[in-house]
Amino acid sequence: MAGSQRIILGIDPGTNILGYGVILVDRKQVHYVDMGVLDLRKEKDHFIKLSRIFEGVGELMERYAPDDLAIEAPFYGKNVQSMLKLGRAQGAAIAAGLHRQIPVFEYAPRKVKMAITGRGDASKEQVKLLMEKTLRTTLDSKFLDATDALAIAMCHFYQLTSPLVDTAASRNWKSFAEAHPSRVSSGVEADKK
Amino acid sequence: MAGSQRIILGIDPGTNILGYGVILVDRKQVHYVDMGVLDLRKEKDHFIKLSRIFEGVGELMERYAPDDLAIEAPFYGKNVQSMLKLGRAQGAAIAAGLHRQIPVFEYAPRKVKMAITGRGDASKEQVKLLMEKTLRTTLDSKFLDATDALAIAMCHFYQLTSPLVDTAASRNWKSFAEAHPSRVSSGVEADKK
Repeated sequence: MAGSQRIILGIDPGTNILGYGVILVDRKQVHYVDMGVLDLRKEKDHFIKLSRIFEGVGELMERYAPDDLAIEAPFYGKNVQSMLKLGRAQGAAIAAGLHRQIPVFEYAPRKVKMAITGRGDASKEQVKLLMEKTLRTTLDSKFLDATDALAIAMCHFYQLTSPLVDTAASRNWKSFAEAHPSRVSSGVEADKK
Repeated sequence: MAGSQRIILGIDPGTNILGYGVILVDRKQVHYVDMGVLDLRKEKDHFIKLSRIFEGVGELMERYAPDDLAIEAPFYGKNVQSMLKLGRAQGAAIAAGLHRQIPVFEYAPRKVKMAITGRGDASKEQVKLLMEKTLRTTLDSKFLDATDALAIAMCHFYQLTSPLVDTAASRNWKSFAEAHPSRVSSGVEADKK
């Protein structure tokens, strides 16, 4: 994006539903762009799920040309089995972003809820209501996974505009920026030995 | 590969060391091609690790043009944190293969050791000795992670030549083949709605 505009793509990469939300930041104003889901429930083969996540996130990158990719990343879960599956889904989504030299940021679900509603234990409906107010639009209740992804993008926007808060995400940004001095050049190649 | 030749790339995708091994199957004869490691220990940023895994596996795919990608995939671990990280590393490596329409197969560490040595609890050294015997070559002891990856490729070869054994891997192959009737055509796209 040119000048002070910035496109943020938020992704909630589950193994059954992948939600996505896109916002446009114009100076300090946030605008709703799009949201939706990639439904993976009918797909039983785990590899094809991963392939659809990677290619699907890739298509979103092509369609919206985001400046940043923000993903929801729970750091704990029910059991090691489910965490391995979730990790794979996250890994495929993150790879799709990094492959295109787009910086990736991750936020814990609690941090996203806190950023949007001021409460870490807010419900999906509460997140949706606050998002509608901030974005001055109505969001379809059918797609709460997409609203979640939109909230992740918004959380990243708040993070960008509150640079004093040194979270894991901003540290990641710093190290990514250091390792990738120019996103236009082939920064990933430069990391290689 | 033309005719009855087949290249198998084995990958052991850890978050610190990624090992790889390449074998060429010519009819029923197996030949050693190459092995090595991608050392990620000095890289502290988890995203850059993932990026290097994805791009590194991609480079291996370009260099060796494998017909199959076989990865070692433990299904359990110490804790949910380490499993999430391992899952991400696996997800990035698997995405690199699927992105190029290469079928991916996964084998549990125990199954790999069993296939090579006949014992599920064999040591890395025992695996190495048996691999040297089978491949009629000497393998450098410095790279036991690479030897492991070579063993994964070999395990997949045994799996291919013993089609009566209905393991998870062969089921994955079947479902992948059904979903991707022609690997030359854009099978991944066809999965999309």
